[in-house]
Amino acid sequence: MNYQKILEEIAEEVQPLLGQGKVADYIPALAEIDPKQFAMSITCNDGNVYHTGLTSTKFSIQSISKVYGFTLALRAYKAKLYDRVWREPSGDPFNSLVQLEYEAGIPRNPFINAGAIVVTDALYSRYQEQTLQELLNFVRDSADNSAISIDKRVANSEMEHGFRNMSLANLMKSFGNFNNDVTPVLEAYFGQCSIAMNTEELSRSMLYLANNGTDPITHKNFITPAQAKRINAVMLTCGHYDASGDFAFRVGLPGKSGVGGGIIAVVPGKMSIAVFSPALNEQGNSLVGTKALELFTTKTGLSIF
Amino acid sequence: MNYQKILEEIAEEVQPLLGQGKVADYIPALAEIDPKQFAMSITCNDGNVYHTGLTSTKFSIQSISKVYGFTLALRAYKAKLYDRVWREPSGDPFNSLVQLEYEAGIPRNPFINAGAIVVTDALYSRYQEQTLQELLNFVRDSADNSAISIDKRVANSEMEHGFRNMSLANLMKSFGNFNNDVTPVLEAYFGQCSIAMNTEELSRSMLYLANNGTDPITHKNFITPAQAKRINAVMLTCGHYDASGDFAFRVGLPGKSGVGGGIIAVVPGKMSIAVFSPALNEQGNSLVGTKALELFTTKTGLSIF
Amino acid sequence: MNYQKILEEIAEEVQPLLGQGKVADYIPALAEIDPKQFAMSITCNDGNVYHTGLTSTKFSIQSISKVYGFTLALRAYKAKLYDRVWREPSGDPFNSLVQLEYEAGIPRNPFINAGAIVVTDALYSRYQEQTLQELLNFVRDSADNSAISIDKRVANSEMEHGFRNMSLANLMKSFGNFNNDVTPVLEAYFGQCSIAMNTEELSRSMLYLANNGTDPITHKNFITPAQAKRINAVMLTCGHYDASGDFAFRVGLPGKSGVGGGIIAVVPGKMSIAVFSPALNEQGNSLVGTKALELFTTKTGLSIF
Amino acid sequence: MNYQKILEEIAEEVQPLLGQGKVADYIPALAEIDPKQFAMSITCNDGNVYHTGLTSTKFSIQSISKVYGFTLALRAYKAKLYDRVWREPSGDPFNSLVQLEYEAGIPRNPFINAGAIVVTDALYSRYQEQTLQELLNFVRDSADNSAISIDKRVANSEMEHGFRNMSLANLMKSFGNFNNDVTPVLEAYFGQCSIAMNTEELSRSMLYLANNGTDPITHKNFITPAQAKRINAVMLTCGHYDASGDFAFRVGLPGKSGVGGGIIAVVPGKMSIAVFSPALNEQGNSLVGTKALELFTTKTGLSIF
Repeated sequence: MNYQKILEEIAEEVQPLLGQGKVADYIPALAEIDPKQFAMSITCNDGNVYHTGLTSTKFSIQSISKVYGFTLALRAYKAKLYDRVWREPSGDPFNSLVQLEYEAGIPRNPFINAGAIVVTDALYSRYQEQTLQELLNFVRDSADNSAISIDKRVANSEMEHGFRNMSLANLMKSFGNFNNDVTPVLEAYFGQCSIAMNTEELSRSMLYLANNGTDPITHKNFITPAQAKRINAVMLTCGHYDASGDFAFRVGLPGKSGVGGGIIAVVPGKMSIAVFSPALNEQGNSLVGTKALELFTTKTGLSIF
Repeated sequence: MNYQKILEEIAEEVQPLLGQGKVADYIPALAEIDPKQFAMSITCNDGNVYHTGLTSTKFSIQSISKVYGFTLALRAYKAKLYDRVWREPSGDPFNSLVQLEYEAGIPRNPFINAGAIVVTDALYSRYQEQTLQELLNFVRDSADNSAISIDKRVANSEMEHGFRNMSLANLMKSFGNFNNDVTPVLEAYFGQCSIAMNTEELSRSMLYLANNGTDPITHKNFITPAQAKRINAVMLTCGHYDASGDFAFRVGLPGKSGVGGGIIAVVPGKMSIAVFSPALNEQGNSLVGTKALELFTTKTGLSIF
Repeated sequence: MNYQKILEEIAEEVQPLLGQGKVADYIPALAEIDPKQFAMSITCNDGNVYHTGLTSTKFSIQSISKVYGFTLALRAYKAKLYDRVWREPSGDPFNSLVQLEYEAGIPRNPFINAGAIVVTDALYSRYQEQTLQELLNFVRDSADNSAISIDKRVANSEMEHGFRNMSLANLMKSFGNFNNDVTPVLEAYFGQCSIAMNTEELSRSMLYLANNGTDPITHKNFITPAQAKRINAVMLTCGHYDASGDFAFRVGLPGKSGVGGGIIAVVPGKMSIAVFSPALNEQGNSLVGTKALELFTTKTGLSIF
Repeated sequence: MNYQKILEEIAEEVQPLLGQGKVADYIPALAEIDPKQFAMSITCNDGNVYHTGLTSTKFSIQSISKVYGFTLALRAYKAKLYDRVWREPSGDPFNSLVQLEYEAGIPRNPFINAGAIVVTDALYSRYQEQTLQELLNFVRDSADNSAISIDKRVANSEMEHGFRNMSLANLMKSFGNFNNDVTPVLEAYFGQCSIAMNTEELSRSMLYLANNGTDPITHKNFITPAQAKRINAVMLTCGHYDASGDFAFRVGLPGKSGVGGGIIAVVPGKMSIAVFSPALNEQGNSLVGTKALELFTTKTGLSIF
């Protein structure tokens, strides 16, 4: 299939949608981003890459980083991780305390904020003040690119506005599901959210999820095939907050979005896709990014359904 | 692939698990069923069938009937149906009133009870007292078998114990999301839950979902390819109550379970599978049925992930 | 104290407020009432009565009837009633299902709808189809007036729009906290809500609560002193839905309001007061009625605080 | 009335109950207290005092301190305080985040933890790092006793275990209902909870609430009569968590309890009462203290009902 041509068709077809939606505005560093940007990159298991748009423009990966955290924690703790975070859809807005309270401090899944924070706490128990560096190292490893770094301005800004996440962390601590001091764990958490990447790097870095846990190019093994399958399943059922079901239908691929405007998607056995466009739809996912992925699976028939 | 051999291996491997779990006991007609039964049937798009166990033993399909109701309503109302029922996972137990109240009477998806009741109400607006018969006709059509019928004893028993569903229906009516009298709609709803089928019939009847909405054998078209894709996506994200995420991982196929012990699963483009074993796990899904499907995708590699 | 003069001052002072607020409009029979009416009556333990305004105009007592139901049920079941309904404030809107579901079908208090319905169910277990007549008899007895009757048009209208109450009743039945058929119990419940009284009759009928459970004029004993104290305490903490705390402060008397625009209040040891003005404030209590009672305790110093 | 004799009768009658219930054990400083202690003190508006039991034994006043905080904040902000905290019963456990989230960060009343924390934040906006000292000064003023102080060990211990309160504060901050840094405000909050007093001091200090806001002995005016009435009303409807309704019935007086085992109650126009016994009932209120107050109003007829 001519993926390059398909990408270019998509870039053209989404053109009229650029400008719709709204960029995240809870911190200045995100609010000031040009909403009309678009980029899309494919990295195939066979090493071929395809790009369209601003694919070397860096952006804040935000919640996409939860995939890396989950990967590291699953590798470190295996199934014991599930004592502290479930793997079920939440049916509540991504930052709700209600469910957390009724379920005694155990978050529904690692892709809602509470779940990702507990994952970071688990990593912190192992790596202490090296946690953020370990995570960054993993991202660099999986992207085969040692230049990836953290946008400190975003990280600081997140920390200054992170009261709800602070509330979640303390609530879990009151239930005994948080083992370290809250502040350094949240610093690591906000640090990972503030990693800056472009779509080329993102699609490259997620390739291990399209190849049973092993990078098909470097042959580095990161996780077991069962763990990769688990991560893909959780992405499909829980990767897009309150629009996970809709994304499953429209796109039909495991994926994870971030409020920075990025989305990654995985075609098991074939490829990893990254898309970027900062304006978000009502559910907080990239409006044009979602549409671009929908066009992609429609044109290629690569939906898993 | 030798599906017959695989089915027989599975039947042997689940043997030690028969007896674990508990049959549904909220009505006598279900409580008295022998928990150690097992059956599994495959119907392929090419017409081949494979069976193991008690595949001609009829059982109450219960919530599996929600797939048929959703199909009929989607055909009748198309996307307008989504004004009355969403397509997102619920994250709450399948019969919770809490979410329904906070979301003003709009159920999360058509596979929780409230959603299926609203679907039945929509069908009732169209078919009136013929609603149950229309639904039964559709089941017979899709199974290409005119002998399928309703177990009246189960239906009456459901109606006598259906206070929570009565509560859900009245709550939706108070929010304006219910257009007919409650009693006849619930009679139709409990009637569809009480359809008795065996795994041969069930796997046959769901084949249209494995073939883009058209029966690959009779070539009857039931729904559009997009509608079939939607139903599969909703089954994957919402088909197993609070274990939907886990089912997505373990089995990796769109599926729907019922408290009668049945589960159906769809391999898009290939086949439909039905399994039956009455004892349920803690989430209310067939314990052995879930295991059998997990073994099936492990042995065949047919998981979508 | 010159209560007649005080009543007349109040009638004059509330004049500018008549027209503010909104009459209940969920059923036509209530929606069409002239919002600018006002009446206030006092009946003292010594037999003196004081009236101002339209004190012989009948109106629908609505939730004020919950006081009579609670009285009858407490007399019949004593403390055993509390196995089925608590005596604590609810902190939720008066008709919320959420709390009821989380607390397994036990309503917070007999003055929210769910609680009053369970009280009616308890009465129905004892009086069967005579339940409504027994309740009406009690109202006539306590008011020493055999002419009090039910407004059938209101009762029928309530029944036609009572889906939320139907939902509450079925939910409690699903939890095992409802022992009779739902329909006849709700007919009795809506019947009691539709009793038509004027402020003269209302203030007269509540006198037993100002005199330890015994009518100070006829000397008929209805309930024990401890039961009367309990009813007063529940009225003070739970009598005005989400404005119970505010009413406790502003008025400082045990009281109960109804969406028909009536409010009754009790000065233990001294008198019973009834006020009527149909337009409601945001919390669903008579706007002018609440103000009139506030003026009364300010002028008389009869607040319990 | 011979209050001394009544106190002594009560002390004798509660004797068999000493040992029932459980002391608070969430921090060591409270867990190790002898559960069988008992003390009861009355201070009358006319200056007479009556004591029985260990009335000079100091204990941690805990949530009773919320009365002082509410008093100070009401004096400072008047009705503007109600923009940030309501005055209605909560119907939820005292430390629930659920209600707080659904009601956008506005606590139900100043006697649940969230409400008291917001009150402390309001005081902190005015007094900054002097907040705790101001509060302590007020307690000393109202008790006419400059020796009252804070138990530092308890305060430190509270701070170390205060994750849920930290969660509440951060949640309110995320909703914009918290204006200072969380840590110093919580330090002030936990400091006030850790004030150590005996029943003699407590009953003396609350006398202003029995006398319209003015100390009847020193004639110092603390708050307006309307503010005193408001505080009494909130104590009656919200002073005992999930047992407020029951306390209203059994005791029939405005009151406030603390998990240290203290309870204060106010007889408007007459006296202030303090009782101490560390073992708590299931609702977290002093078991023997509640009983002692119930006996007191039964023997004296001083219930407001």
